[in-house]
Amino acid sequence: MKTLTHYLTMNLPSKMGFKNITPDVEKAVHASGVQEGMVLVNTMHITASVFINDNERGLHHDFGVWLEKLAPFNPDPNVYHHNRTGEDNADAHLKRQIMGREVVVAITKGKLDFGPWEQIFYGEFDGHRNKRVLIKVIGE
Amino acid sequence: MKTLTHYLTMNLPSKMGFKNITPDVEKAVHASGVQEGMVLVNTMHITASVFINDNERGLHHDFGVWLEKLAPFNPDPNVYHHNRTGEDNADAHLKRQIMGREVVVAITKGKLDFGPWEQIFYGEFDGHRNKRVLIKVIGE
Amino acid sequence: MKTLTHYLTMNLPSKMGFKNITPDVEKAVHASGVQEGMVLVNTMHITASVFINDNERGLHHDFGVWLEKLAPFNPDPNVYHHNRTGEDNADAHLKRQIMGREVVVAITKGKLDFGPWEQIFYGEFDGHRNKRVLIKVIGE
Repeated sequence: MKTLTHYLTMNLPSKMGFKNITPDVEKAVHASGVQEGMVLVNTMHITASVFINDNERGLHHDFGVWLEKLAPFNPDPNVYHHNRTGEDNADAHLKRQIMGREVVVAITKGKLDFGPWEQIFYGEFDGHRNKRVLIKVIGE
Repeated sequence: MKTLTHYLTMNLPSKMGFKNITPDVEKAVHASGVQEGMVLVNTMHITASVFINDNERGLHHDFGVWLEKLAPFNPDPNVYHHNRTGEDNADAHLKRQIMGREVVVAITKGKLDFGPWEQIFYGEFDGHRNKRVLIKVIGE
Repeated sequence: MKTLTHYLTMNLPSKMGFKNITPDVEKAVHASGVQEGMVLVNTMHITASVFINDNERGLHHDFGVWLEKLAPFNPDPNVYHHNRTGEDNADAHLKRQIMGREVVVAITKGKLDFGPWEQIFYGEFDGHRNKRVLIKVIGE
């Protein structure tokens, strides 16, 4: 069995944002030499997401509007008890649950076994600082 | 290490719908010969889901009503910017985030290691056309 | 390849609740002897979740309020058709979709490869009875 562990560092210049990390994952899979297996890609932070969807700017706008509606930002500690800790990012912890922490992608014949439109995104909900993404490849 | 890759083709006759694909996954696991490992099951399309829940018709009705409430269909490109591309399925991209892209299931003694009510479903949110599901088994 | 299968039994004394199961997963990973691989942790029940987020009491309160808003409890079988089966837990099946069924965590150098705040939780949405969690380790 072969494995490879690789870390990315993200720093998005806005509170909320989405970044296509598919090329980084492809590079890690290629470097691993794995022909058949799986790759796990997860954010290592709890106010961010890794997910698979469309590489389309309008949709990313829609994600932002939608997530703000389902889990609105509100620093008031009477609204979100988490903000009694002195933080103001309770909404980011909720948004991340909708978008997910991780994806697992099949590797077939040395490549990400993707449908026609699948792309991997990092989703940030409490930006302006460094956060890490983990890529773990296993297979043979 | 053993691996097996299998693709299903789905074509649901409605915009939204749910189909039990557990028997297909069980067949692939059996065919792989894997006794201990994991199976990844994911939709290869970004307006559909694979998820695990109850095989109960009333609940599937409830999923439909609930998802339509949380992420309503609306072809208006002023409501969903994604629909400025000429598509009308922005809502399907959102619904899929709630229901998820994939499941990973443990294989123990050659079988899906499931609780009493777990069943695997394909969830369609923009139907009337062919879409694929990927089954990837790894283990020994 | 090494594998390990371990089951936890949960019994939460309330309808909704969250329990940190990170120490149990760490023990299983250690017992497996796996140095490089992955661990799958999933609830085996369809009205519960396993997810990764913050070990902070205020946030867990916020999760409860938020989930009740997005998928309110209502035993009325006219509101949720699932409750025509005689059950009253349709809302729990919906809440579980938002919080997720499973997590997959990388194992690196024999340990859970976690960011600074990541902790694994069992989320209960229809408690007062025994439910199981599955831990499956694979790697080498």
